[in-house]
Amino acid sequence: MENASTPPPAVDQSAADATGTPRLTSADVHRAERRLTGRLWRTPVIRSDQLDALVGARLWLKAENLQRSGSFKVRGALLAVEQLTASGSHGVIAQSTGNHAIAVALAAREYKLPSVAVLPSDAAPGKIRRVRDAGAEVVLAGTLLADRVAKVEELRQLYGYDVVDPYQNPHVVAGQGTATAELISQVAADGGRLDAVVVPIGGGSAIAGASLAADGHGLAVVGAEPEAVPAFTAALRAREPVTVPAHHTIADGLRPDRIGGLPFALAHRAVDTVITVSESAIGHALRTALLDARLLIEPAAATALAAALEYASGPVSDVGVLLSGGNVDPSLVRSIMAGRGGRGQ
Amino acid sequence: MENASTPPPAVDQSAADATGTPRLTSADVHRAERRLTGRLWRTPVIRSDQLDALVGARLWLKAENLQRSGSFKVRGALLAVEQLTASGSHGVIAQSTGNHAIAVALAAREYKLPSVAVLPSDAAPGKIRRVRDAGAEVVLAGTLLADRVAKVEELRQLYGYDVVDPYQNPHVVAGQGTATAELISQVAADGGRLDAVVVPIGGGSAIAGASLAADGHGLAVVGAEPEAVPAFTAALRAREPVTVPAHHTIADGLRPDRIGGLPFALAHRAVDTVITVSESAIGHALRTALLDARLLIEPAAATALAAALEYASGPVSDVGVLLSGGNVDPSLVRSIMAGRGGRGQ
Repeated sequence: MENASTPPPAVDQSAADATGTPRLTSADVHRAERRLTGRLWRTPVIRSDQLDALVGARLWLKAENLQRSGSFKVRGALLAVEQLTASGSHGVIAQSTGNHAIAVALAAREYKLPSVAVLPSDAAPGKIRRVRDAGAEVVLAGTLLADRVAKVEELRQLYGYDVVDPYQNPHVVAGQGTATAELISQVAADGGRLDAVVVPIGGGSAIAGASLAADGHGLAVVGAEPEAVPAFTAALRAREPVTVPAHHTIADGLRPDRIGGLPFALAHRAVDTVITVSESAIGHALRTALLDARLLIEPAAATALAAALEYASGPVSDVGVLLSGGNVDPSLVRSIMAGRGGRGQ
Repeated sequence: MENASTPPPAVDQSAADATGTPRLTSADVHRAERRLTGRLWRTPVIRSDQLDALVGARLWLKAENLQRSGSFKVRGALLAVEQLTASGSHGVIAQSTGNHAIAVALAAREYKLPSVAVLPSDAAPGKIRRVRDAGAEVVLAGTLLADRVAKVEELRQLYGYDVVDPYQNPHVVAGQGTATAELISQVAADGGRLDAVVVPIGGGSAIAGASLAADGHGLAVVGAEPEAVPAFTAALRAREPVTVPAHHTIADGLRPDRIGGLPFALAHRAVDTVITVSESAIGHALRTALLDARLLIEPAAATALAAALEYASGPVSDVGVLLSGGNVDPSLVRSIMAGRGGRGQ
């Protein structure tokens, strides 16, 4: 929060293409890394003999489930709220089903700004509690994205607060990219060299940030999305974001049924492969992380791990995985642990 | 395994007091650290805003649940097996209910020595599997320590193998101390300074190693043991190791009903406080680690965390905790998660 009144911008917004899309580059991610230094945990990169033996390659797990706020989303939220504070904001609003709301609430508290989180009326009690614990006022609005977006607009006009968009805000995207940048440098410091990094795809900020961070490192960027909501796969096919039918997935962080325009613009050429993951593979990966890597991860992160287990079985030797978060409801842990077909019993 | 034929001893066995107890010092721990460099994961020290808020102090969690073999015991096992290999051993035998057997099996495999693990006949299937996966022959022998010790002696004579004692072997004790030594230096590298380190007490190798590692750092060494088996508390009172009635505890790693002679000699003056922990507090701490720190730990480690949560509520600011291991049966995770009285759901 040093120099909060006059921070140098983490993203150079003067650069934009003809459509108005900011021209983010890896330099923006490195600028974001410097801005965030000392304000986050430097989360560890975890290795597991058991997982390595399973796939016949080395997996490097970037444990953002251990990050402040319980997910990597605090990275982008801190930068976005910092910029809004510097430009005289009176408060912030975020709509989310979870991690982005927790992250924005925590960032707003650090900048002493009031914050409002718009959550679905059927949000898990544990998530509502975490958002409130982080200091936000919680407003429940319907069960659809459209309900929440309408409520956000209403509150924006009523309070005069600024909206922190989870996918379209360039500070958010650059900030999310710092997780992958850290992973790459931590592996290098340990004498390794990644062939690929596997990242979950929801609205797209993680894969866009990873695309920026991986630029110039000669590694493949692999996306992971649930079979139930294959929004990025559909966008690649259509060559633009399209809305897909959203079936139910336990990966609540990956439910957006349409990839953001900014993330798609940044990621669509950089991504090598997108692996779609079944619901049972997500559950299996969550259980594997718990029992073989001793980490509690949320289903979005388990989606990336499941894709990595598949990808790493191919002809590669070192695969990084963004374990994006660990905000998971106790009831889901119970049901995953009670699930059939697992190992160990 | 470099120079496996002529390693410098990690422990100077020429130094011993009048009773024959090796005079281990912090220098032996630092020598052990150098011997182990590059052969283990440098496990992270995890911070959690949620845990800190709970106790009003900063907790620094040394995550040895993420260590190779799933526990810190691999540290001492590697050193002990290295020494035996250097002195021409044909194979090793370890009796254990779990982590020491897994660790010795893994160490023996690295030195290409055959190994036999003597486990109780009612050992959890998951533990037996892990020992076999690590490459040991498993022999089941009764349900009592005496049954296993008799079987070890029988096999020793039959095979001519060497026994790796979990508490009395000075290499094991010095090796276990390296976990605490690393914790102290990792916290210092992060700008912190520990007031205390909290360590679980079973047979005593962890607390003895921690006592050596903490020497000269001006911090309190705090032991944690289950109320069900208060062997160290009883030994402190009697001023020598005594056998206590062992009631049932979920902390299977802390079941030894008598502290080892060597650990007691090393630790009894160095330890500031011993906190005894109820079974419900152990279960609660395991659940807290999972939901608030996103780490799966075993009940022995949860015993240390429970004691640390109590200790850190007092007038201290920075408390280190040795999360000794993460080898926990899926069925126990299920029952802890289904338990009543927890938070979140």
